[in-house]
Amino acid sequence: MSIKTELTSIAKKAQGACRSSLTLSSEVKDRALKDMALALLDRKAYILSANQKDLRAAKARGMSLALLDRLTLSEKRIQDMADSLNEIANLPDPVGEVINIWRRPNGLWINKVRVPIGVIAIIYESRPNVTSDCLGLCFKSGNSVILRGGSEAINSNLAIAGTLKGVLKRHKISEGMVNMITTTDRAAVKALLSLNNYIDLVMPRGGESLINQVMKLSRIPVIKHYKGICHVYVDGSADLKMAEDICYNAKVQRPGVCNAMESMLVHQQVASKFLPAMLKNFQDARVEIRGCPVTKKIVKGIKLARESDYRTEYLDLILSVRVVKDLKQAIEHINNYGSHHSDSIITDDYDNSLEFLRRVDSACVYVNASTRFTDGYQFGLGAEIGISTDKLHARGPMALEELTTYKYMVMGSGQVRS
Amino acid sequence: MSIKTELTSIAKKAQGACRSSLTLSSEVKDRALKDMALALLDRKAYILSANQKDLRAAKARGMSLALLDRLTLSEKRIQDMADSLNEIANLPDPVGEVINIWRRPNGLWINKVRVPIGVIAIIYESRPNVTSDCLGLCFKSGNSVILRGGSEAINSNLAIAGTLKGVLKRHKISEGMVNMITTTDRAAVKALLSLNNYIDLVMPRGGESLINQVMKLSRIPVIKHYKGICHVYVDGSADLKMAEDICYNAKVQRPGVCNAMESMLVHQQVASKFLPAMLKNFQDARVEIRGCPVTKKIVKGIKLARESDYRTEYLDLILSVRVVKDLKQAIEHINNYGSHHSDSIITDDYDNSLEFLRRVDSACVYVNASTRFTDGYQFGLGAEIGISTDKLHARGPMALEELTTYKYMVMGSGQVRS
Repeated sequence: MSIKTELTSIAKKAQGACRSSLTLSSEVKDRALKDMALALLDRKAYILSANQKDLRAAKARGMSLALLDRLTLSEKRIQDMADSLNEIANLPDPVGEVINIWRRPNGLWINKVRVPIGVIAIIYESRPNVTSDCLGLCFKSGNSVILRGGSEAINSNLAIAGTLKGVLKRHKISEGMVNMITTTDRAAVKALLSLNNYIDLVMPRGGESLINQVMKLSRIPVIKHYKGICHVYVDGSADLKMAEDICYNAKVQRPGVCNAMESMLVHQQVASKFLPAMLKNFQDARVEIRGCPVTKKIVKGIKLARESDYRTEYLDLILSVRVVKDLKQAIEHINNYGSHHSDSIITDDYDNSLEFLRRVDSACVYVNASTRFTDGYQFGLGAEIGISTDKLHARGPMALEELTTYKYMVMGSGQVRS
Repeated sequence: MSIKTELTSIAKKAQGACRSSLTLSSEVKDRALKDMALALLDRKAYILSANQKDLRAAKARGMSLALLDRLTLSEKRIQDMADSLNEIANLPDPVGEVINIWRRPNGLWINKVRVPIGVIAIIYESRPNVTSDCLGLCFKSGNSVILRGGSEAINSNLAIAGTLKGVLKRHKISEGMVNMITTTDRAAVKALLSLNNYIDLVMPRGGESLINQVMKLSRIPVIKHYKGICHVYVDGSADLKMAEDICYNAKVQRPGVCNAMESMLVHQQVASKFLPAMLKNFQDARVEIRGCPVTKKIVKGIKLARESDYRTEYLDLILSVRVVKDLKQAIEHINNYGSHHSDSIITDDYDNSLEFLRRVDSACVYVNASTRFTDGYQFGLGAEIGISTDKLHARGPMALEELTTYKYMVMGSGQVRS
């Protein structure tokens, strides 16, 4: 059987499973999710031994320590996965929510109702916990899922997905709702991305090259969780103590995540007052500074930023710094160099705060707060499947609601159009 | 200058124009829209003479009468275009609407606010009124628009877009909000669809081959207004008089539109009672019937439907008819052969109505009403830019709200993440 035929058959089954599961009650789904959590813990030894197989192969191939760490499962990490599934079970079910209902003059009742999207494909890289997290969120929102993990994690992923699929079977829920692609052949991705008749959405989770490849090949709608080149702009009227705390938090608290600050912009009026102490703090925290010429004049001995620095997501203890003429230049810089993820202004000026909120073209725009809050939990949306840097369907933190679409249910009593 | 360079420059300007127009008030936009309506009427003679040029060229090339009719502008059609612009001016502005607002325990205020999508490209075929309708809807919702009409209508489209762009200039609104691609070179479409850094959404409006081409080439998110293979299913418990009225209306009232019925399904229990009179009515209205073997047994002398008939959008006085075993078979038929647009059940059975509403995977699902109501005006949404057969971002009638996205505006007082 060719890969295309095999994947088509998986995708068709996934579509059928999703349709036949449309009337699953929230109670049944939540019970299954809680049993999935238990099953992960029950089969801990089995999952860890599958993970050991992946780790041995990865070490033999000379995988870097950082990647090995991402690939490694432990009792603690399996416990975290189980906790996530329980949390998802406890969130409200988005399916069936009436978004709006109204009556037309001719007596038609129009209901706009939240329904599952259908079949969601997720293409991701080494972290095996993604398997269980994505599966849980898609299942809770009534979608079938097709998972394609990295080849380096294939044994771990199969052990996790197999365990969770077993729970579906025990609950008499169609197993087609959960599908793990077993071949590690790279041609599988291309074949998968051509199945737009069966798959409704694809989400790549991984680095830039994976996302670009998916965008290029896909005939299925894609929602990207792309780079986070986040800015904090310290306005001329900022409370400089507050600015210092927020910038420090945005950069240092967890530099390896997409909502961390990568670029700091400072109004020229406060630059010489603000920068020396701020950059000293950063250097004490081992942050490497790459500054514009004006920054270098104010604080000696730092590296000069190249233009490419302003377009770089470091995900590390590195920060680019630029002194700007005014708010307008700051906004232009953010819109041109940023990734439309999360950006913050520190200001005491009312008009400037509004101008920034309106004109910065990003998913999340902040006044006087750290960009680190862009997160489904922090927003109070519950678990998240990622942060969309796209504008269509979902923007910013994507939680359960964003894994649904809607349909119009129209109730009549014989209406015809004249 | 290469086509790619030229289009990139247009798309960049469109992006800049949209960003600089983010703070246009509803009042300013509505005044401009009303002036656009006046300008179309003022320049009627000029637009009609440009249209004559297109018509002469089309006739010389031997264009069919139906297509010539679509291409033809008249005083009445220009008046209709002007009326539409005035209607759009009178609709509420979706931009700035607060979708949701909540406060987090740490004091952060999170506002989810409706904003323009950005730059929208529309690729369409011969009807020149699409130029003014799309332009009006995109402008009202704060988006820049890049229009690529058919080469056969190029003079008409340029005259209309030029007239409306002139109004922007008089109102000191950035002219980059309205862009018409002047080259009729087919390479332009491919180049346009690669500009995903500047264009946020592309909507093809036209036949299947145009839509497939756009889907294949585009790196920009696409929302499709695809086929309407709409069904009415007459259930075993239907009020047969109501069923007759609704089926007749769904097929005959305007057969050339996407929400007209293309396939009628009838429960076996009522087939021999319902079909003879119903098909007689259809034949009196010159509807050609293509029936399944059971239908042919009940009503002699009709054509046999092939399987391909059930997948065909006739847009004409032709109807496929199938007798089904039960509700389950009807739902399976609709989900497999339909285009997920609009489908209706005629029934007096409460459980069957709910089952149909839940399980039919279409944008609009009806009980006891004609499929012909799937329409932005009929739904009370105001003007529509089309009917999305996609599931992401917009499903069903797409009006002003669906031409927007949202962003999160987060207001803090120094919050940092711990």
